[in-house]
Amino acid sequence: MAEKVTTISFERGNPSLDSFPVAQIKECATAILDSDSDTILQYGPVAGYPPLRTIIGSWYGVGPDEVLASNGSLQLLDFLATLLLRPSDTVFVDEPVYDRTLTILRRHQANIVGVPVREDGPDLKVLADKLRQGAPKFFCTIPDFQNPTGVTASLAKREEMVHLAEKHGFWIVEDSPYRLMRYRGTDVPMMQTLNPGRVIHLSSFTKTLCPGLRVGYMVAPANMVKALGDIVVNTYVSPGFLAQGTAYEFCRRGWFEPNVEKLRDLYRPKLASVAAALCTHLPQAQWPEPDGGYFVGLALPEGTSTADLRERGRKVGLGLSDGRGFFPAGGGDRFLRLAFPALTVAEIEEGISRLAQLLAGT
Amino acid sequence: MAEKVTTISFERGNPSLDSFPVAQIKECATAILDSDSDTILQYGPVAGYPPLRTIIGSWYGVGPDEVLASNGSLQLLDFLATLLLRPSDTVFVDEPVYDRTLTILRRHQANIVGVPVREDGPDLKVLADKLRQGAPKFFCTIPDFQNPTGVTASLAKREEMVHLAEKHGFWIVEDSPYRLMRYRGTDVPMMQTLNPGRVIHLSSFTKTLCPGLRVGYMVAPANMVKALGDIVVNTYVSPGFLAQGTAYEFCRRGWFEPNVEKLRDLYRPKLASVAAALCTHLPQAQWPEPDGGYFVGLALPEGTSTADLRERGRKVGLGLSDGRGFFPAGGGDRFLRLAFPALTVAEIEEGISRLAQLLAGT
Repeated sequence: MAEKVTTISFERGNPSLDSFPVAQIKECATAILDSDSDTILQYGPVAGYPPLRTIIGSWYGVGPDEVLASNGSLQLLDFLATLLLRPSDTVFVDEPVYDRTLTILRRHQANIVGVPVREDGPDLKVLADKLRQGAPKFFCTIPDFQNPTGVTASLAKREEMVHLAEKHGFWIVEDSPYRLMRYRGTDVPMMQTLNPGRVIHLSSFTKTLCPGLRVGYMVAPANMVKALGDIVVNTYVSPGFLAQGTAYEFCRRGWFEPNVEKLRDLYRPKLASVAAALCTHLPQAQWPEPDGGYFVGLALPEGTSTADLRERGRKVGLGLSDGRGFFPAGGGDRFLRLAFPALTVAEIEEGISRLAQLLAGT
Repeated sequence: MAEKVTTISFERGNPSLDSFPVAQIKECATAILDSDSDTILQYGPVAGYPPLRTIIGSWYGVGPDEVLASNGSLQLLDFLATLLLRPSDTVFVDEPVYDRTLTILRRHQANIVGVPVREDGPDLKVLADKLRQGAPKFFCTIPDFQNPTGVTASLAKREEMVHLAEKHGFWIVEDSPYRLMRYRGTDVPMMQTLNPGRVIHLSSFTKTLCPGLRVGYMVAPANMVKALGDIVVNTYVSPGFLAQGTAYEFCRRGWFEPNVEKLRDLYRPKLASVAAALCTHLPQAQWPEPDGGYFVGLALPEGTSTADLRERGRKVGLGLSDGRGFFPAGGGDRFLRLAFPALTVAEIEEGISRLAQLLAGT
């Protein structure tokens, strides 16, 4: 009898199911309905559950008026595009970048210009070159454990980026949902801290608590939050308060930081096993070793096509993303993003071994 | 010592705080986290929590693939506009109509054409006239206890509207969140039932359970749900499953229908008190008497300006909406929408008495 091969998928950046603090979330949902059902169950503040905004603000050294809590953080980019962009307006993005960032910007008919990501962040020489042709409305960059490369931008580069934003008068959209998922080393200051007046910081509870609640947020100048509020109220009236109240209660009880520590301990060995398996099985691939996050981004040998690899992977129980989806204007044929958090160490090893066999058969 | 006047507001269509079944919602949130946390807390199906879609589908005689559950129903109109409209495309709407419908359509730069609402629904003579100038992409109409007039469209008019939609090839967006809030009389068939292939039905749990959960839904042909799914996934990845799971559990336990009955019993006397107070204090106003819903729409005497009334109301503790906000292209100066569910019978009586005094002082 043929052995059934279980598919191992490196495709999407889902957290591990065993990472969810179910009992605590249950307690928090119950507690917030006990203490504040009048707010949780009614229409309410368009910018999000006020006590949650206060707690988030305290993390960033700002007041609640500088925080906009939404149903996940992706939609906040959509709101920003609605507010700031007209068709053909230019937006700079990391290249490669999170595929849904591109989909949203394309929907708004933006002129998307990629700034290549190097091992220490965006290529600032290219950025300066592009700026000579005109400033974008904003530069959407993922400085911490970048999606899809895993790269973290250096402090020097962050300082230069906010300097350029100030000089040329554009916004930096600092999309940083993975920031707290650091498995080694020390934090690099946020651009939001370096220049709160020029930076719109996006993050969420998706990677630090769970995705299903859909609690994301923006930290931005109060007038920006206010301007977006008009779009928000005319899109969904108010956000999901049961989820936001639950997240608030989780933080209020002091459970957030220990949970982040738990997640780091859960994912640290997984990232290490990706690195080890790549060294063993795929010495020909090039990749910057991340210090955290959800992804390792590989440059496969010349002549490889991840689109082709993806097709062939399907037949041997290996789920791979198509590298081209992360590039704004072509390229990415031999780029491969490996998302690892939802896999076990054993699956990671087996998956990368399958990948190596697939490549050997190219 | 001067007596402090408590403000009585007829402005927004909020349910009454005492209408929320808090203990039951708490039980349902806990139960769904017990039974299905892997789905509730993870990324998941873009079209909504599958068991909820199945239950909703059963109400409409369709399968789950014909149901799209979102974070409230307003955003579904935004998705529809994104899918179906290009700038300057024509959309027909009831006149007057829910103000946020207009805001969304304007954001999409639609050419908005109003079809006047009479005591038995949209004026079909005007509709036929407008159609001679070309069919719209869709006609957005609120057939049950219309917002803001309270009017319910007759069966004959519904039949004619779906006939015209079929003949001229446009969609009917049947926005019907108040449908179950009928306090007397019998249901008129939905247009979705009359012609499921031409009607996109929107509704939500906002009026039947509570707004804070933000669970709205669309019933539409499966290919429409699928096409919208691509927009949805690139807007918020997946909807709020804790809220959707809680609503599902509420239905699964058989609590939905009794809750609707309870709400009807709660709001029936409130609507009756609006009617009685209007007859007593405002015999000069004209208004179709609604059989349910959240609103009574008044035509005030010639020469009245609700914008002015609103300003003056503020000073005497009376919250009034500006009638002009409900009209797509001017008019509405003497139109006044009274939203009553959040008020007590005593507040309704006092509020309408204040309104009469205000009008007398015009």
